[in-house]
Amino acid sequence: MKPGATDEQIDHVIARIKEAGCNTHVSRGQELTIIGAIGDETKVEGLNWRATPGVERAERVTKPWKIASLQMHPKPSVIDVAGVKIGGGNFTVMAGPCTVEDKKMLFDSAGAVKKAGAKILRGGAFKPRTSPYDFMGLGEEGLKLLQAAGREFGMPTVTEVRTLAHVEVACRYCDMLQIGARNMQNYDLLTEVGKARKPVLLKRGFAAQIKELLLAAEYILSGGNTQVVLCERGMRTFETATRFTFDVSAIPVLKEQTHLPVVFDPSHPAGKAALVPPLARAGVAAGADGMIVEVHCAPEEARCDGDQAMQPGAFEALMKDCAKIFEIVKGNGR
Amino acid sequence: MKPGATDEQIDHVIARIKEAGCNTHVSRGQELTIIGAIGDETKVEGLNWRATPGVERAERVTKPWKIASLQMHPKPSVIDVAGVKIGGGNFTVMAGPCTVEDKKMLFDSAGAVKKAGAKILRGGAFKPRTSPYDFMGLGEEGLKLLQAAGREFGMPTVTEVRTLAHVEVACRYCDMLQIGARNMQNYDLLTEVGKARKPVLLKRGFAAQIKELLLAAEYILSGGNTQVVLCERGMRTFETATRFTFDVSAIPVLKEQTHLPVVFDPSHPAGKAALVPPLARAGVAAGADGMIVEVHCAPEEARCDGDQAMQPGAFEALMKDCAKIFEIVKGNGR
Amino acid sequence: MKPGATDEQIDHVIARIKEAGCNTHVSRGQELTIIGAIGDETKVEGLNWRATPGVERAERVTKPWKIASLQMHPKPSVIDVAGVKIGGGNFTVMAGPCTVEDKKMLFDSAGAVKKAGAKILRGGAFKPRTSPYDFMGLGEEGLKLLQAAGREFGMPTVTEVRTLAHVEVACRYCDMLQIGARNMQNYDLLTEVGKARKPVLLKRGFAAQIKELLLAAEYILSGGNTQVVLCERGMRTFETATRFTFDVSAIPVLKEQTHLPVVFDPSHPAGKAALVPPLARAGVAAGADGMIVEVHCAPEEARCDGDQAMQPGAFEALMKDCAKIFEIVKGNGR
Amino acid sequence: MKPGATDEQIDHVIARIKEAGCNTHVSRGQELTIIGAIGDETKVEGLNWRATPGVERAERVTKPWKIASLQMHPKPSVIDVAGVKIGGGNFTVMAGPCTVEDKKMLFDSAGAVKKAGAKILRGGAFKPRTSPYDFMGLGEEGLKLLQAAGREFGMPTVTEVRTLAHVEVACRYCDMLQIGARNMQNYDLLTEVGKARKPVLLKRGFAAQIKELLLAAEYILSGGNTQVVLCERGMRTFETATRFTFDVSAIPVLKEQTHLPVVFDPSHPAGKAALVPPLARAGVAAGADGMIVEVHCAPEEARCDGDQAMQPGAFEALMKDCAKIFEIVKGNGR
Repeated sequence: MKPGATDEQIDHVIARIKEAGCNTHVSRGQELTIIGAIGDETKVEGLNWRATPGVERAERVTKPWKIASLQMHPKPSVIDVAGVKIGGGNFTVMAGPCTVEDKKMLFDSAGAVKKAGAKILRGGAFKPRTSPYDFMGLGEEGLKLLQAAGREFGMPTVTEVRTLAHVEVACRYCDMLQIGARNMQNYDLLTEVGKARKPVLLKRGFAAQIKELLLAAEYILSGGNTQVVLCERGMRTFETATRFTFDVSAIPVLKEQTHLPVVFDPSHPAGKAALVPPLARAGVAAGADGMIVEVHCAPEEARCDGDQAMQPGAFEALMKDCAKIFEIVKGNGR
Repeated sequence: MKPGATDEQIDHVIARIKEAGCNTHVSRGQELTIIGAIGDETKVEGLNWRATPGVERAERVTKPWKIASLQMHPKPSVIDVAGVKIGGGNFTVMAGPCTVEDKKMLFDSAGAVKKAGAKILRGGAFKPRTSPYDFMGLGEEGLKLLQAAGREFGMPTVTEVRTLAHVEVACRYCDMLQIGARNMQNYDLLTEVGKARKPVLLKRGFAAQIKELLLAAEYILSGGNTQVVLCERGMRTFETATRFTFDVSAIPVLKEQTHLPVVFDPSHPAGKAALVPPLARAGVAAGADGMIVEVHCAPEEARCDGDQAMQPGAFEALMKDCAKIFEIVKGNGR
Repeated sequence: MKPGATDEQIDHVIARIKEAGCNTHVSRGQELTIIGAIGDETKVEGLNWRATPGVERAERVTKPWKIASLQMHPKPSVIDVAGVKIGGGNFTVMAGPCTVEDKKMLFDSAGAVKKAGAKILRGGAFKPRTSPYDFMGLGEEGLKLLQAAGREFGMPTVTEVRTLAHVEVACRYCDMLQIGARNMQNYDLLTEVGKARKPVLLKRGFAAQIKELLLAAEYILSGGNTQVVLCERGMRTFETATRFTFDVSAIPVLKEQTHLPVVFDPSHPAGKAALVPPLARAGVAAGADGMIVEVHCAPEEARCDGDQAMQPGAFEALMKDCAKIFEIVKGNGR
Repeated sequence: MKPGATDEQIDHVIARIKEAGCNTHVSRGQELTIIGAIGDETKVEGLNWRATPGVERAERVTKPWKIASLQMHPKPSVIDVAGVKIGGGNFTVMAGPCTVEDKKMLFDSAGAVKKAGAKILRGGAFKPRTSPYDFMGLGEEGLKLLQAAGREFGMPTVTEVRTLAHVEVACRYCDMLQIGARNMQNYDLLTEVGKARKPVLLKRGFAAQIKELLLAAEYILSGGNTQVVLCERGMRTFETATRFTFDVSAIPVLKEQTHLPVVFDPSHPAGKAALVPPLARAGVAAGADGMIVEVHCAPEEARCDGDQAMQPGAFEALMKDCAKIFEIVKGNGR
């Protein structure tokens, strides 16, 4: 309550909490009175306390996510993507071009990442672009090529879905659905993939707090799809030296909060290929379960985000470092 | 080019620009060489310059938006919402409850905002909620109530659409479609409203730069719908004293860039009713064409965002101040 | 306490609070136990609760500032700068060039701002510059010129002090000391001006939260100098369209927390002269007690920040608008 | 120039550049004209271009720092702190308590970090505190204890200096001077340590861009002190799950720009001990030359920042991991 709240105001608040079906716990200090509501918080949190006379602020002391929380599910989850496991002591790498452009480019890139040790093939067919005048991907045609490349090299595939209609199409051709950063709070899309039978790679919005990422995951989980992998991909800050600020802390913070596997994308925050290896090594060292990296056999020719696409040689060297670092981190149970 | 770029690298870049169909302009300084591409920038900007040997960075010097730009369309646009004008020397206020909850609450609130001078009735039927466990609105039922209230009090209505399917429904009952902050970069939704025959209120994403807001508008405009109103509603920063940081500067900055009307939402950045009036007055004083405010006849009972809903009396007083301030700002042509 | 904290852990925390000399108030919920410490919070807040077994977090529910708080001192303070009042129903404008460069420029600018209605003359003699290679001001020589110009036009003067040695010199020549944004957390400087006998204009750091600004003021106040004016001047965010993001909300938020006068600087966030008027009008409309504006009789010749310096004619027009808006805001007691 | 700039305006700009002593290079595109100034940029950059009619913006294409730049000094610098090297293929750890509190605590902590492999002992005697009511350290008494502990365990010492007067005192007792984040832009302090004969640990301000950190270093270097080590310690963002957001990308970005050694502080961004190891491992993996960590033999008793202080056992385990990861990173020359 505000300093100087009247007894009437205090009693009014206590009455509202009890009406709502919770018990109260009142603590009167020298300057302040604090009223605790005990019971099912969902009964009281919709009651607009700050609009109630005498109330300074209302704060929940329990976490708003349930299914995603480590408390409810203390054993780390292992997600199975058509036979490839994410979590459970593996460091799983998803790699490939930003966008599916043509068969040769895709197959060359797929072969290269497979050779380097990547386990899942990534490729975009429905690209979100900031400008309406930019290339947006090949659509279903791209998904067919992606599926063909996956089969050719024995890799499950992951692709981004941008809108409800994409979900059904992507489920037909791919093994994992990606929700991009700009759609992390597209609640209808989250609800739709919550009904799908495919694992979901959920990227953190570039201005989303970690708790909002967990609530976005809760949308999918509460819809019945428990196959969710969380992905840190950089946040927007005042620093312009990188495309986004890679929030490496998000990895251990998420590990403290949830049983879901946590991976990261070093390519988008880096914004250029030369910065990808240090960010990738940092993410592994921080305890991630895997990463998703943009690799292109001819970055200079890429039609999207070529700046940040690694060349196969550099990627192969990076994979060796990551494997060694993962062993060290794994060794001490993180 | 990078310091120390070789002549081969410079020639290679010049050659690529010419292949792409632009002319070049080379400026050799003591430390640096700068290569300008002259012509249609869309021909060269997709070429991943940073992946090209010797290139330090590539930067466009022309603006990526065309239809939204003041340069292409020097006369300010006036948007007509079922007879109510936004822009063109009016200060147009949209007000009403955050969410349509029931008929009585809605009609009481609508009557109150009409009396205070609001011209357009707002009300949400499809609410984006951070948690899957929160109330999401009444859907089509809510739109019917909103339409009825609008007719009762002679006000056109505006409501938020969250996904493609909402667009057709909302067009049936409402006079203006709102794209919320979380959907500012939901490109499929932007494309869909670009095909609609209704004016669009486009809110700035809370981590979107002003140029990204203009590009989002460009999606709608390039789809054929020229009835777009831009709305500043607060950005996410390190400051926690307010729910969002109201970027009042965005109003004059947008006015310098675009012919589209610019309004603002003081309720969401404020996060509590007591802060709404000063932010509202600031927005008018900065040169906005209107605002959208949450007003509720019984904030304490509101099922969503009651903290920030103004009560009718306070709203009426605010309207008087805004009208006076608008006259001063208008007086000097901003 | 953490969910699942043991009774031993709970008892240990209670014991530590009692040892420290506070009473406790224990509230046991279904999932969580909350322990309140009642009494003088300074006795317990240094005890590193998060390092204590079983503790999830410790949070103070009272404000850490005392002398600055509105609660302790409900009557708004009026600061007297050599006869010019800031606060108490006045809108007081401080204006002048960014930096004192030479006598003619300074006197021309001073005459112009006086004529337009400014009450206090600003001018920098000790400039903080991001690069060691930039012009840093004329030092004491500049202060002599500033004093002379102030006397010539009957205006008290304000100037920035950057380090302890500047305080004594500035006190000899000027009527008000300014602490710049980069020094808001230079605690030794705050302590030094806390001993001075001159009013202090304390600017908010560009990444400082409002509560940190109040704590910085508390340093000065607790040193015995009660003549403090707070100044919002823009914060650093991801938006690059303006030099800084003008946090207009800080004005009403500060008014809710403190009795100290609140002014703002529209020049630094704007970064260019054309944006200063809308930001200035917004600040007045939000309820500020005054502003500090950069005005230069020949911006193109300015040796520092000429981009954002207003020309006398534009400044005079702005002053008229601000006076009218202030009357409206004042009229309704904000 | 702005679109539609007149020939007079263009000629005026060219004339000003030539007067200033630079050559010009004019590039006329279809929509825009760009004028390059060739020569010593310091001659033209102070000319307030945005205040010049017809100019849209002025941008420097060369870096404003000289001595710190890798271009000017391609060989990585190795800093010698009383015999301990930072840079040059070593991973150098500075550790110890946040603040020197008493002899026993300090010696116990010093012995523990020495045993674990730390090479330099850290300890604060002059603490910057956000509130004037918090413990600020023991001053010179603390430095004497720090020196004694350093001698006892054979470790050079580093301590923070907050104001000019501290520099001389700290130089008498310590081997390295630390500039804290809040003082990164305290230019007088930078200038003062620029005259000192001791190596300087320069921490990045929590809202400073990387280029501003390099300019702050330039202040020290241009003063004649070339013994500078840069330190990333977390930035302020919208994320509240950590105390600050650890910008791990800053490490490789700085390595691309400067020859100075780059270290990091995982303790302050983590804000709690449990998060320190993953951040520390991430920093090593990203290519840092060392780190500075808060370790306390009894965190629960610490009078400052005990939340984030590691216990000796956990620190020892972390040191082993970091050594292994450093070998991997070093192996491939980063």
